[in-house]
Amino acid sequence: MKTALSQLGQRTAPPAISWLMSLTLGQPKLISLAAGFTDNASLPVSEARELLNTAKRLTELDENATTAAVCDRRLAPNATKLRRPQPAATDISSDRLLITHGSQQLLYLLTEALCDPGDIVLVEDPTYFVYLGIAQSHGLRCRGVRLLPDGLDLAHLEQVLEELRRRGDLPRVKLLYLVTYYQNPTGYTTSFAKKAAALKLLRRYEKFAGHPLYLIEDAAYRELRFAGEEVPSALAAPGGADRVLYAGTFSKPFATGVRVGFGVLPEPIRTTATRIKGNHDFGTANLLQQLLARALATGAYERHLAELQRRYAHKARVMTDAIRAHFPANVEWREPAGGLYVWARAPKRLRTGAKSRFFQTALKRNVLYVPGALCYANDPTRRQPDHEMRLSYGGASERDLAEGIKRLGTVLSA
Amino acid sequence: MKTALSQLGQRTAPPAISWLMSLTLGQPKLISLAAGFTDNASLPVSEARELLNTAKRLTELDENATTAAVCDRRLAPNATKLRRPQPAATDISSDRLLITHGSQQLLYLLTEALCDPGDIVLVEDPTYFVYLGIAQSHGLRCRGVRLLPDGLDLAHLEQVLEELRRRGDLPRVKLLYLVTYYQNPTGYTTSFAKKAAALKLLRRYEKFAGHPLYLIEDAAYRELRFAGEEVPSALAAPGGADRVLYAGTFSKPFATGVRVGFGVLPEPIRTTATRIKGNHDFGTANLLQQLLARALATGAYERHLAELQRRYAHKARVMTDAIRAHFPANVEWREPAGGLYVWARAPKRLRTGAKSRFFQTALKRNVLYVPGALCYANDPTRRQPDHEMRLSYGGASERDLAEGIKRLGTVLSA
Repeated sequence: MKTALSQLGQRTAPPAISWLMSLTLGQPKLISLAAGFTDNASLPVSEARELLNTAKRLTELDENATTAAVCDRRLAPNATKLRRPQPAATDISSDRLLITHGSQQLLYLLTEALCDPGDIVLVEDPTYFVYLGIAQSHGLRCRGVRLLPDGLDLAHLEQVLEELRRRGDLPRVKLLYLVTYYQNPTGYTTSFAKKAAALKLLRRYEKFAGHPLYLIEDAAYRELRFAGEEVPSALAAPGGADRVLYAGTFSKPFATGVRVGFGVLPEPIRTTATRIKGNHDFGTANLLQQLLARALATGAYERHLAELQRRYAHKARVMTDAIRAHFPANVEWREPAGGLYVWARAPKRLRTGAKSRFFQTALKRNVLYVPGALCYANDPTRRQPDHEMRLSYGGASERDLAEGIKRLGTVLSA
Repeated sequence: MKTALSQLGQRTAPPAISWLMSLTLGQPKLISLAAGFTDNASLPVSEARELLNTAKRLTELDENATTAAVCDRRLAPNATKLRRPQPAATDISSDRLLITHGSQQLLYLLTEALCDPGDIVLVEDPTYFVYLGIAQSHGLRCRGVRLLPDGLDLAHLEQVLEELRRRGDLPRVKLLYLVTYYQNPTGYTTSFAKKAAALKLLRRYEKFAGHPLYLIEDAAYRELRFAGEEVPSALAAPGGADRVLYAGTFSKPFATGVRVGFGVLPEPIRTTATRIKGNHDFGTANLLQQLLARALATGAYERHLAELQRRYAHKARVMTDAIRAHFPANVEWREPAGGLYVWARAPKRLRTGAKSRFFQTALKRNVLYVPGALCYANDPTRRQPDHEMRLSYGGASERDLAEGIKRLGTVLSA
């Protein structure tokens, strides 16, 4: 008997993250620099209790306001407030918002709304590997665009677009996916000038595509800034209001178990994504929305965020101090200015993949990282790099960070 | 310029429920017998506060345990406990469970896992209209199977399967979707004998389909029983463990703003749905899972459920007393034994659809119901009935229930 599974069901691969997590569970002494989790000690326990206790009435237990028709209006004023340092041109009125079950859900909804099997999405090289999982599951083709420390290599973006045009493939291209702040996995932030230039390039190629070419700006880590200036969103660039699909989240900067994300979207994308969301789940659990709305209204959110920024700044420093002390000089890396990650690039001859001797040796020494190769799309037009590591300072304790990096350093030097 | 939307994006229709809700918002004096909402006054406010306050540590703010790899293990023991009066044969061990953001999400995941555009799903006639929305969005064809007060008309199910076999369409059939307890919209409950017979019939036709034919048992209202005996799940019928995709929820029987549902699923469906869920959102918000796990462990859940059953029994009585007093004798209906709905069938000549004079007159008199036609699949093989109404006693106050039914009775008699 054949399978009853759909094409999507058959395609959807086991997430790489599960395999990494299973390693963690089976090896209790393992120091994991792999998980992109936030820091348990930082969770706003007392704030959450207080918020729930001081509410006059726990309307958050009520579903009535969470259906798709209205869910997007709940956090609108607060989302607006959050986008503080935007140019006035940025329109993020409530009728452009959609509230989701974490920003991950928005990435899924946008993929459903825009992409058919065989369509092409442009991604950063490297990029967020769960987005690659969504694309693979939907039967999409990914084209990687080289990433530099200040964002996309624009010449390469143009080269990729031009090549797609020549082949007649542009009608299949739907979007460019960028993680613009403290990117997962590199920690890099895209400059505003590059966002504007990318939008302009996309716009130029729309006539060959025959339809809008959207820019998904995944800003999941935006609030976790601890150095440098705030970079404006792509929404503020010329044409941004029409073409940028902005994905934000309240979970990472507050409490990751309170999954609430949001999108700022032009039409017809917002209406379409809202309808699909209605079919998914009617709307994000009201309890979560209310908890966050209260945290935003009382200032607890901002206070917690400031504390979080201090904490991650410190943990990043612990990691980079250890890297300076223990990694050989031929490993490249950069000081992060926010987010949860350091991207380490070994010489090309050193394989870091899951089957590599290096990865297995590190595992034997009880230290785990995310192999860089997992963060590269399956793009047949270039060889997939396999000599990098994503190192996260989010979840591990400071002691484990120092010790984990020391162990990695030993293996790297050997 | 053409649209960039995907096929799914273009297909996904505005939900009927939004249109009905917008009527409610625009007409503040309206008595809504339309919304399938639960009763606000019944929300477990003090229980929820107490649960959150007595916890030693608010681990629910932590995401770490919610990723797809492990989310399904969290509520397993409690879900198992809930299925109290099952025959011992029913295997619902934790490795058959998947926790979802409400049971609605499970319906979506199963559709994604099993159905390609053009595939056929068999549904009750009438059925839950949001499921019809999911099917429409995925480009599925629906075939309606007549529903009787004790479940499917089995002869009609066989006739439909036989006709599909003759046409060579069985390879496109993936599943039969049943809302087996206090069905939305009719309030009918499927007998255990009919569940077993339906499974047997499906199994018989598998050789023509060439793949498993699944039975989705949507048990969303199961716990809201206030009369009659508990009917065992289809999981307990012969072959049920291999072919039944059981969708349960903790939200409706506890607090609808705490969206947590669960599936009991055979392989390979569970693995596939879990992977897709990982791409959707990594896992259901941990705060919600922890709150429910605690409510189940302390007994607060069972106490609240008992109170809810008493309350709905009373509200159902208020509605049916009013129906008896005010509806003309040629309107057919049944005393509900659970759930939130009474299904009223007017003589065929009386149209109840959204554009009908009857619906508009009722609206002018400030009373709203769900037109029966919305609950019928777009099945070209039969005429869509348009003389029925779904009446909900869930959301309205007792006073409004009595007054709303009285007004409807006046319009019906005129």
